Amino acid sequence: MYPDSIKNLVEAFKYLPGIGQKTAERYAFSVLDLDEEQVDLFANSLQDVKKNIHNCKVCNILTEDDYCFICTNDTRNKEVLCVVDDVKTVFVFESMGMFKGHYHVLDGLISPLEGINPEDIGVGKLIDRIRNSSFREIIFAFKPSIEGETTSLYIKRVLDGLNIKTTRLASGVPMGADMEYIDNLTLERALSDRKELE
Amino acid sequence: MYPDSIKNLVEAFKYLPGIGQKTAERYAFSVLDLDEEQVDLFANSLQDVKKNIHNCKVCNILTEDDYCFICTNDTRNKEVLCVVDDVKTVFVFESMGMFKGHYHVLDGLISPLEGINPEDIGVGKLIDRIRNSSFREIIFAFKPSIEGETTSLYIKRVLDGLNIKTTRLASGVPMGADMEYIDNLTLERALSDRKELE
Repeated sequence: MYPDSIKNLVEAFKYLPGIGQKTAERYAFSVLDLDEEQVDLFANSLQDVKKNIHNCKVCNILTEDDYCFICTNDTRNKEVLCVVDDVKTVFVFESMGMFKGHYHVLDGLISPLEGINPEDIGVGKLIDRIRNSSFREIIFAFKPSIEGETTSLYIKRVLDGLNIKTTRLASGVPMGADMEYIDNLTLERALSDRKELE
Repeated sequence: MYPDSIKNLVEAFKYLPGIGQKTAERYAFSVLDLDEEQVDLFANSLQDVKKNIHNCKVCNILTEDDYCFICTNDTRNKEVLCVVDDVKTVFVFESMGMFKGHYHVLDGLISPLEGINPEDIGVGKLIDRIRNSSFREIIFAFKPSIEGETTSLYIKRVLDGLNIKTTRLASGVPMGADMEYIDNLTLERALSDRKELE
């Protein structure tokens, strides 16, 4: 029914996460209303991202150069390393702005059930980096899950004897949350991690 | 914070309707997970749509050729013309499949308040087409609104004396709707357009 050009664009939009036929059609039609300039910019930026973006040689953050904006920043605290399982977490941390240390991005989390082992997510590169650096604290900033705990515990054990503190993000009731909608696991964790008032 | 290539792609995704910063970022990151082949296809189909798609010379339906798939189809009923204000309506009608006549796509609806006059939406081309054809019924398939009614009435008046029936889609309670959520205007219309049981 649709002309081929539109059909192809609809299929392309369906590559995006959570986009079904209807939304893809809506997006495809909206492209007809863009200027030629905007469409060229859109098309080129798609290809540029794929061509220019790769992982920082040290920490795996996305970058267009060999080293990322964190690793090349001499003012960052060289004693604290925040380990994440997804590069997006780095950008969330940076937009918060409170953390001034370095990052290391793993390629996911260890999951024995799904056959994902330490070597699959680049734990070796992380350990080498820690061994050759001045980090005194490793913060694990994984989302609270079995896989996150498995990964943190595994790395902590490998680092045993290096005199490096390992910590994880506090988990508990999110700010502004309605108590009646908190799930049991979160509540359990919030209770066992309770803090004394000062 | 983001590398330039990602920043540009995020901005490009924001051209799409209803896409804000967060969703644009999500889409931009998802592009990194596509094959190079998929990205090229995506980029090319964006440009192809802009390059190849234009309006049918007769009815304004989107097409890659001079005439669209409806105007070149000799089996369509040449006595019924469905007038729409948006080409998407044509594809909705075609996916329903019940309508076998021809279409004419106006470029919007007449709206004196917004200064949109008959000549702005291509009414002249429609009238010329009707005068030079064998249509015996014109169906207005605009969304129910003041502008839709203004436009239908204007065209009906221009066609006066041509012995052509003009009709509009029935409006009323949609199938499967919950009565308690029907707005007053829809209910008014459903009541005044009520049909006798047969």
